[in-house]
Amino acid sequence: MTVYSERLSLPLGRPLYFGGDYNPEQWSRDVWQQDVEMMVEAGVNLVTLGVFSWSRLQSAPGKFDFGWMDEIFELLSSNGIMVDLATATASPPPWLVHAHPEILPRDFSGRTLSFGSRQSYCPNSRPYRDAAAELVHALAQRYGSHSALEMWHINNEYGCHVTSCYCDVCEVAFREWLVKRYVDIAGLNFAWGTTFWSQIYTDWNQVTPPRIAPTFSNPTQQLDYARFSSDSLLDCLLEERAILREVTPQIPVTTNFMGFFKGVDQFKWAEALDFCAVDNYPDPASPTSSLISGAVGDLTRSVGQGRPWILMEQAPSAVNWREINAPKAPGQNRALSMSSIARGANGVMYFQWRAAKAGAEKFHSAMVPHSGRNSRVWRETVRLGNDLKALGSLGSSQTLVDVAILFDWDNWWAIELDSHPSTKLSYPLGILDLYRSFARAGRVVDFVHPGSDLSRYKVVVAANLYLVKEDASCAFVEYVQNGGVGVVTYFSGIVDENDHVYLGGYPGLWRELLGIEIEEFSPLAIGESVSLKGEFLQLHGGSGQQWSDSINLVGAEVLVSFGSGRLEGMPAITKNAFGSGKAYYVSTSLDPDTWGLVLTDALSGHEEIAIRPSSEDVEIVNRGNLVFIINHGLKTNLSLEGDWIDVLTKCEVSGELSLEQYDVYVLYRLIRE
Amino acid sequence: MTVYSERLSLPLGRPLYFGGDYNPEQWSRDVWQQDVEMMVEAGVNLVTLGVFSWSRLQSAPGKFDFGWMDEIFELLSSNGIMVDLATATASPPPWLVHAHPEILPRDFSGRTLSFGSRQSYCPNSRPYRDAAAELVHALAQRYGSHSALEMWHINNEYGCHVTSCYCDVCEVAFREWLVKRYVDIAGLNFAWGTTFWSQIYTDWNQVTPPRIAPTFSNPTQQLDYARFSSDSLLDCLLEERAILREVTPQIPVTTNFMGFFKGVDQFKWAEALDFCAVDNYPDPASPTSSLISGAVGDLTRSVGQGRPWILMEQAPSAVNWREINAPKAPGQNRALSMSSIARGANGVMYFQWRAAKAGAEKFHSAMVPHSGRNSRVWRETVRLGNDLKALGSLGSSQTLVDVAILFDWDNWWAIELDSHPSTKLSYPLGILDLYRSFARAGRVVDFVHPGSDLSRYKVVVAANLYLVKEDASCAFVEYVQNGGVGVVTYFSGIVDENDHVYLGGYPGLWRELLGIEIEEFSPLAIGESVSLKGEFLQLHGGSGQQWSDSINLVGAEVLVSFGSGRLEGMPAITKNAFGSGKAYYVSTSLDPDTWGLVLTDALSGHEEIAIRPSSEDVEIVNRGNLVFIINHGLKTNLSLEGDWIDVLTKCEVSGELSLEQYDVYVLYRLIRE
Amino acid sequence: MTVYSERLSLPLGRPLYFGGDYNPEQWSRDVWQQDVEMMVEAGVNLVTLGVFSWSRLQSAPGKFDFGWMDEIFELLSSNGIMVDLATATASPPPWLVHAHPEILPRDFSGRTLSFGSRQSYCPNSRPYRDAAAELVHALAQRYGSHSALEMWHINNEYGCHVTSCYCDVCEVAFREWLVKRYVDIAGLNFAWGTTFWSQIYTDWNQVTPPRIAPTFSNPTQQLDYARFSSDSLLDCLLEERAILREVTPQIPVTTNFMGFFKGVDQFKWAEALDFCAVDNYPDPASPTSSLISGAVGDLTRSVGQGRPWILMEQAPSAVNWREINAPKAPGQNRALSMSSIARGANGVMYFQWRAAKAGAEKFHSAMVPHSGRNSRVWRETVRLGNDLKALGSLGSSQTLVDVAILFDWDNWWAIELDSHPSTKLSYPLGILDLYRSFARAGRVVDFVHPGSDLSRYKVVVAANLYLVKEDASCAFVEYVQNGGVGVVTYFSGIVDENDHVYLGGYPGLWRELLGIEIEEFSPLAIGESVSLKGEFLQLHGGSGQQWSDSINLVGAEVLVSFGSGRLEGMPAITKNAFGSGKAYYVSTSLDPDTWGLVLTDALSGHEEIAIRPSSEDVEIVNRGNLVFIINHGLKTNLSLEGDWIDVLTKCEVSGELSLEQYDVYVLYRLIRE
Repeated sequence: MTVYSERLSLPLGRPLYFGGDYNPEQWSRDVWQQDVEMMVEAGVNLVTLGVFSWSRLQSAPGKFDFGWMDEIFELLSSNGIMVDLATATASPPPWLVHAHPEILPRDFSGRTLSFGSRQSYCPNSRPYRDAAAELVHALAQRYGSHSALEMWHINNEYGCHVTSCYCDVCEVAFREWLVKRYVDIAGLNFAWGTTFWSQIYTDWNQVTPPRIAPTFSNPTQQLDYARFSSDSLLDCLLEERAILREVTPQIPVTTNFMGFFKGVDQFKWAEALDFCAVDNYPDPASPTSSLISGAVGDLTRSVGQGRPWILMEQAPSAVNWREINAPKAPGQNRALSMSSIARGANGVMYFQWRAAKAGAEKFHSAMVPHSGRNSRVWRETVRLGNDLKALGSLGSSQTLVDVAILFDWDNWWAIELDSHPSTKLSYPLGILDLYRSFARAGRVVDFVHPGSDLSRYKVVVAANLYLVKEDASCAFVEYVQNGGVGVVTYFSGIVDENDHVYLGGYPGLWRELLGIEIEEFSPLAIGESVSLKGEFLQLHGGSGQQWSDSINLVGAEVLVSFGSGRLEGMPAITKNAFGSGKAYYVSTSLDPDTWGLVLTDALSGHEEIAIRPSSEDVEIVNRGNLVFIINHGLKTNLSLEGDWIDVLTKCEVSGELSLEQYDVYVLYRLIRE
Repeated sequence: MTVYSERLSLPLGRPLYFGGDYNPEQWSRDVWQQDVEMMVEAGVNLVTLGVFSWSRLQSAPGKFDFGWMDEIFELLSSNGIMVDLATATASPPPWLVHAHPEILPRDFSGRTLSFGSRQSYCPNSRPYRDAAAELVHALAQRYGSHSALEMWHINNEYGCHVTSCYCDVCEVAFREWLVKRYVDIAGLNFAWGTTFWSQIYTDWNQVTPPRIAPTFSNPTQQLDYARFSSDSLLDCLLEERAILREVTPQIPVTTNFMGFFKGVDQFKWAEALDFCAVDNYPDPASPTSSLISGAVGDLTRSVGQGRPWILMEQAPSAVNWREINAPKAPGQNRALSMSSIARGANGVMYFQWRAAKAGAEKFHSAMVPHSGRNSRVWRETVRLGNDLKALGSLGSSQTLVDVAILFDWDNWWAIELDSHPSTKLSYPLGILDLYRSFARAGRVVDFVHPGSDLSRYKVVVAANLYLVKEDASCAFVEYVQNGGVGVVTYFSGIVDENDHVYLGGYPGLWRELLGIEIEEFSPLAIGESVSLKGEFLQLHGGSGQQWSDSINLVGAEVLVSFGSGRLEGMPAITKNAFGSGKAYYVSTSLDPDTWGLVLTDALSGHEEIAIRPSSEDVEIVNRGNLVFIINHGLKTNLSLEGDWIDVLTKCEVSGELSLEQYDVYVLYRLIRE
Repeated sequence: MTVYSERLSLPLGRPLYFGGDYNPEQWSRDVWQQDVEMMVEAGVNLVTLGVFSWSRLQSAPGKFDFGWMDEIFELLSSNGIMVDLATATASPPPWLVHAHPEILPRDFSGRTLSFGSRQSYCPNSRPYRDAAAELVHALAQRYGSHSALEMWHINNEYGCHVTSCYCDVCEVAFREWLVKRYVDIAGLNFAWGTTFWSQIYTDWNQVTPPRIAPTFSNPTQQLDYARFSSDSLLDCLLEERAILREVTPQIPVTTNFMGFFKGVDQFKWAEALDFCAVDNYPDPASPTSSLISGAVGDLTRSVGQGRPWILMEQAPSAVNWREINAPKAPGQNRALSMSSIARGANGVMYFQWRAAKAGAEKFHSAMVPHSGRNSRVWRETVRLGNDLKALGSLGSSQTLVDVAILFDWDNWWAIELDSHPSTKLSYPLGILDLYRSFARAGRVVDFVHPGSDLSRYKVVVAANLYLVKEDASCAFVEYVQNGGVGVVTYFSGIVDENDHVYLGGYPGLWRELLGIEIEEFSPLAIGESVSLKGEFLQLHGGSGQQWSDSINLVGAEVLVSFGSGRLEGMPAITKNAFGSGKAYYVSTSLDPDTWGLVLTDALSGHEEIAIRPSSEDVEIVNRGNLVFIINHGLKTNLSLEGDWIDVLTKCEVSGELSLEQYDVYVLYRLIRE
């Protein structure tokens, strides 16, 4: 549809962006003045305007009120603050929904989702798209040449709340999407395997979305609906982008992703953006908050092909939408923000500038909380602004990475379908387990789309990669053939893009690569744990959960066996020499120590990393010539070799570094001549 | 709408009422005769007729069959039994629903609730209201001058099962309600904070009920819908009441409340009743059954401004609608019934007289169980009838109370909205915790509507009073200013009546009163417990759950600090001298012993109560010149000073009283000359 | 409707059937050839064709494609493999649903269940039934005289996924069903007890299905809807059967039941079948898998009045529809299959022959798994085929049984209704508890419909038989009167067929039989356990769960009393001499050892069984002159008296038999002269 070639980049000469969503329409003019003064005090240089302003900007078709926004633009501009202007299309206003109630989305079970919250629209609704286009055009013409306009923020968190709509408009759109994919009905019947359960379609108009049904809907139908839903939302973005490109070809566009969000295939979407942006809301009360936050940063960098990105939203402290919303601890947000910079972000933004007095997000923390200046949150806001200023411009400097995890939304949609050996398998949780083990080994990870060039990586992992296309499968095999190290975990390589099983022992296309054949899956019960045994484990006894496989060896050596359970004595982890490389197979969810041993073995022979983390919670990331050291855990020490300068304090540091919880150092090496 | 001034009172010269719901239409005439004989044997003097009799009384518009009821009236009347006549409007008959299917209510997610159970009507349905009016008019004309007619029982358990209807009729009615409240659409936009999430309405007809939506609906919209729903049901009552007032101005009217039931603002409703009545169904298997029962009695007395009330329904033993329905233990129901009398009831009634043979409530216990006379339940029925006779008429004698808890349905609706710091906060459970502590200290509590005159109380508690209007806030401040003792617990004083946050540190209007400023909420996880420390706790170590606050002191002293958790070392309980009084702040859910220490401190300087309970389960309540002593727990002793007469046995008692479980004494002091 | 008299029998001269569902339409012709070769290798002699083939057989009204099936028939026939031909009506094709969307079923809450899975039809839909009739007629005419046609398999797993439909067509059909049952509206009003909750109907067209309602729908309405739903599905079967009888009067018909499946009254259905068949899918990971499997076999034999039946479906290893799907252990499936033969099966079939490559059941195990010949599953398939061959023809030989449990779908529907003393009572779980105790005592059980002739049994149990009609009640009383031993467990004999309580102390009609009167139920909380005491228990201390009763003795002796809880000291188990027999009452859910003592007492005086199981997991069943010995548990020994031949190995065995887990022996006694 749209050609993506003329991509712009994130402005690179700038200092790091700092700011947040700004909703002046909720406040009176006297507050605006105070806002800008405090922004200047905190070092804010970018604010996002208009995300939820449609009903304030337009009160009827053709009837706009830009006066207040003009004023805000001037106020910000005159204080040196740039604008990330939202297209405001994420929440259609009451008058539009009232005029076109068919805009409202319908859920899986046929319930219409009413107006009254936000994002209540069907992405395939023509009245919605036309009204959005009118608004975007008006905004682009009004502000496209304003000097404060730094970037466009299309819509907001696409797919949030309504990932898939199941209305009659979507039914028709789904058919059109299927016609494009399969050309004729025989193609669909083959792909969906409709000889089973008497589902052979004889006409396109018999095909419907996978709505609530007596039992499991056709899995390929479900998989295609996930693809279609992601594409439907992408079409919304592309329609807005086309307008913006036409009116303001010089202004870069982005939208804010949501990290490990299932609904949107970010690898595909990122091609339509000039740069990537992400919202990151780890639960501060969770012990994995820093891990998830790091993974979200790595994912965003990865889908953007390594280019700098923006952390578009985060909470200074608590959010309001979990069942229980813990505040962030003092320093915690600074540590997480710096982690994002280390992983490639050129900006750190918040939702939102000033805490609302009313509405559904009034208890979401903000840079200016209800308690105002006299607060920890405000003091930390100011401090972070100063820190970012101290870092200067990082331009296009790159995060250093040498290991990769294959990641694929197609696989996510497929592996979590129903009617599987275990429905308890969560794709992102499996990925996170592995990510943690790489983190413990001091490695930053790229998430790579299957089928990409893998030659730059020392180790590549196919974790729970259930669905893998033939060409992607070949790329992985070639990578190992040519000397790479491949690690494959359970329930990988099982089906093709149509969710058809690769026949013969599992995993169909990788039996030779791995030197094994799997006869049968043997998923473990909830809470069931089996012991592992083998010299490879050294003194510690490992354990496995969630899964096991009945493996026949066809060339591979056994590293670790099952020590208990149904498969006692049978292979649990294998290793196979293949071409110039080697390939591991891991048939169960490993405890962290066993993962550590596997990765150490896989990485053996590769040079050590510069500074080794002294604890699981110490994060060490290299970006360009800077080393970010962040302690998310309890107090610990870290040994530095050589002499360094801390960019944040301008002080020299060397030897034993004492790290309090949430301490951050950004070092560069001092070369003494 | 209706003017409430011409309020009648509950007939006060009568003996205590005793009886139950009577459904003779389920039985043949020979059973009726047996019924009345057994009623006389048990001392029954009042029965409730007609609650679910609409379909038996009327078979088509204009077509009534009163013959059987005439007969029953005569039979009862001739045996000295009075009638509490239900208006029978709680369950519309099949013919009406079939003629007007739009009467059926629709739920939050759009599902129509079918006929086949009970109470299947939309309160705003005009066909329902018109048919109800026809029936009420006919009943009033038929029985209004019958000598057995003691009182009117309007409808039944308003709001039970269907608290809010979301149909299109309600949508229109909601708009009319909103127009009355906000006059113009700008008023609604301000109150609902519609600048957020693009919700600015430009016309009333865009406004809908808060039906199922992509995410959290506007909180003020939700709050207003709760108010509207309570008012819609009240309108039903007022329409019936207007007819009854016109035809039978001399007969008092009531309806049966349901204790701590969220759907109906009893303070507002009680103004429309001549006296209050309540249904009370504590779970006999729960250790808090007597506590909840006591609180229900206190609430009913409180909403009725202290006037005598009727316990309109309770079960002699098991109910049938819990997942598992335990019977009451021998004596348990007598103890609970006497507790109600002590707390102001002038009658003890049951659901129902005779256990049904068929239908959904056939396993609900009854005064005459399936096993008939040869049963513990029947023997206890007779015994309670005798006990009530022994008590004679209590007239308008008052329960003695000197402490109060502020209670407000507006707050209940608001504090349990979604998108809050913690969604695990239950308003009634929080209130019950506090109520238990007062009970342990031997105090009977009034539940007082915020904004009422508080001067008669020694201690007043604002517990989880999240929403507080400015005038109510001032009343509380004044009360302390003038020497009262105020206790405020966490998440109180946060928003105004529109659910808008009072800005600045929390709690907006009470910072000065309490001498503190709260920066941020820090809700605790499920099951998380933090320790408390401070000399105030003496030797015992306290603990907090559910909540904590980041408190800055502005004049208050710290009584207790957090001993662990995120806020270790920071204030947990504070005390502030204010005017002639003092104000406490409690920032977490306290263990009972710590609550005991706080209340002891708050009550210090006030004279001791006459008889101090020897155990948490011993209830001691003064009504008029009677002291009710009820032991809901295991065997214990109680020391009496002076000499007393037990009204139930006419015996003299003094010294050490041995209390078996469920023993009841009703004493008055013997003044020896 | 149809007269059942001309019943055919399962062909009895045949060897045991062995095979499975065969779906050649999913595969290309070259696979067909391989299929048949492997079938011959495994000893397959029967396959089920066409279960989900409607859309492959018919592409429009009147437009059939039988070519591929003709070919398959020939291929099978020429290899000596017979066909169980499904009528293919279980899953209507897309073109039919598209032409008649009203075919789609509607659920309890009004949601239409969409096309896309299987079995998406309303059983009362005329367009569905007419289209089904057209298909059945065409199939019968095409294949009715083919020599390979062994039997008809009508539809598939009736009631699976959609047990009850609540659409408007069903509303009308329900009324017609009610008119037949009650003749006039007064009859319905009496049966449903509509004087309660204002439900008196004045016209049939006011009556609706028990759809979602404000609270509990009328229980008799719910009960009648369960009856109606079973009958609606039965009507579908009868319509197909009428066509088959007409076209192919010589071919026996069956359908595949689902064991303890609530939706279908198998006693009534079995009368319409020439022989019974069942699908059996115990969870291999559950410790009760062999127990449930045995009970399913006994139930299928019982509903078929003792005649041989077919195990129509089972999984060779894992299924795919549980949350977590464990594979069967090596040998486990053989052990379960042999148990079915022992309990009367004349055939062992699987779902399915070859594992699918696509669709919702691709991870369901199959006789030919994805990994093909090189697999444990295939080797076990071949082994079982050989075993069955070794057993030869078992003809009409009978399983030996002398104890019975009364079983009734009417009761199942009634006892699990809402608004009961405890809603946690599961009828099949209660039955299974008792079944386990009989199994531990080495007894095979018949499940007998209440009201049947009981004279052949030593002991008959009425377990949780809440609903019992008067005639069935009398039959049970007579059985004891004439010397039988009756055991009654809690919540039995409570209501009549209209769900009306038998008044007086419970259990209404059996008070005299049992010599007790129950005043009140006292259900126990989840997890609550009360101790039992009495000399009868010997040294072990028993316990009760779930239930207890307040029992007054009227002639019975107390065997066991409650040792703790609300009813401490009161009777828990009683025994009453009645006529020439005796009757026990058990008022709580007993631990297995106490059940063992009760059954031992009940069985005392009856001759011992031939071989006594040495462990709970050792199954010993006599069929004809064969003794099946199967060890489902860990390794154990078994003492044999006399000399025996093992039919499977043709070896002689005697003395101490060592039984590995899943070992199977099929012995007949060697009579030495």
